[in-house]
Amino acid sequence: MYDISMLIKPDIQVYKNNDSKRPEYKNMSNFDSGVSYETRVSLDIHTGTHIDRPLHMIDGGKTINSLDISRLICKAKVFDLTKIKNRYIGLSDIDSLDIEAGDFVIFKTINSDNENFDFEFVYLNKEAAKFLVDKKINGVGIDALGIERAQSDHLTHIQLLEADIIILEGCRLKDVPEGEYELIALPIKLDQTEGAWVRAVLR
Amino acid sequence: MYDISMLIKPDIQVYKNNDSKRPEYKNMSNFDSGVSYETRVSLDIHTGTHIDRPLHMIDGGKTINSLDISRLICKAKVFDLTKIKNRYIGLSDIDSLDIEAGDFVIFKTINSDNENFDFEFVYLNKEAAKFLVDKKINGVGIDALGIERAQSDHLTHIQLLEADIIILEGCRLKDVPEGEYELIALPIKLDQTEGAWVRAVLR
Repeated sequence: MYDISMLIKPDIQVYKNNDSKRPEYKNMSNFDSGVSYETRVSLDIHTGTHIDRPLHMIDGGKTINSLDISRLICKAKVFDLTKIKNRYIGLSDIDSLDIEAGDFVIFKTINSDNENFDFEFVYLNKEAAKFLVDKKINGVGIDALGIERAQSDHLTHIQLLEADIIILEGCRLKDVPEGEYELIALPIKLDQTEGAWVRAVLR
Repeated sequence: MYDISMLIKPDIQVYKNNDSKRPEYKNMSNFDSGVSYETRVSLDIHTGTHIDRPLHMIDGGKTINSLDISRLICKAKVFDLTKIKNRYIGLSDIDSLDIEAGDFVIFKTINSDNENFDFEFVYLNKEAAKFLVDKKINGVGIDALGIERAQSDHLTHIQLLEADIIILEGCRLKDVPEGEYELIALPIKLDQTEGAWVRAVLR
């Protein structure tokens, strides 16, 4: 079994190194002050391994509440795209891959080699996203905190989310060979949020 | 598949109705202020469905980091104890049940009928906990935010945690019949904490 989740350390990489996105751990009780050790954690939805729901990029979009979580215990295909030429996944990088309706596809890139935030992270471009929408996939995962950057129309997110395709961000895939797996990535049962944290494993 | 997790609403029940334990949702970006909707959540480890690790009650105890999470994709046995006489699960309530080494046992009680915090919630007493330790179980789940109350020596927690038995708290079991299931309850990959939130399902 491969644990493909990020460890949510206080100094974990956060999007664009924005300090306001850093996790905060606060000790609420310990053995000096009481009889138990208790922690409170303040955490952005988009820090660590998480899924996005339509509300993240679509005004009035669906939240985590309406997600059928059985979609996150599913077959998944990991594709090794560490050798692609550009700093994005384009249509020509994926149009000959074995991608079928209902698949959860996970793209392994050079992002998995880097634990620091990379302003030039490999993303999925909008033409490739359109291809995945047309394929009617279940979900798509990537090893960056975002599936998209550098597209001012945000059409990678918007096309995928309009089609209710699950976006899984922040995967760690360095040690995971290309192949077929079972993905388990159940989201924490938050309320009315635009996504949620997951512990994601492949087996 | 049964989702046995609590919905983490702002007004979710919290231990002893302590306001400092309430979850807080903070909107960080929305479609008035920007191009995306983003939320930050402040949440106690022990609010909502979660597991306890030894550090919760044992000074210097193990944290979430050292947990083998494959232990939380496992067979589980749900026992219906809604008819027990007392406000605790005692040895005589469980000593004739089919409990074997390696089992993840989950106790369904009248706690599952109540979404408000009950100061008299049904707990597992220390004699029953000792029985489970001797049985060498993998884990134990209950439908209260705590597995213990009203025992000043905290020996239910301490005995279970010293034996590295996983404690799963905050299960919702009202609709779950007694029987054998697969439990999936992978914890969020927090760092050095005394437990972690899970999305728990039985199937």
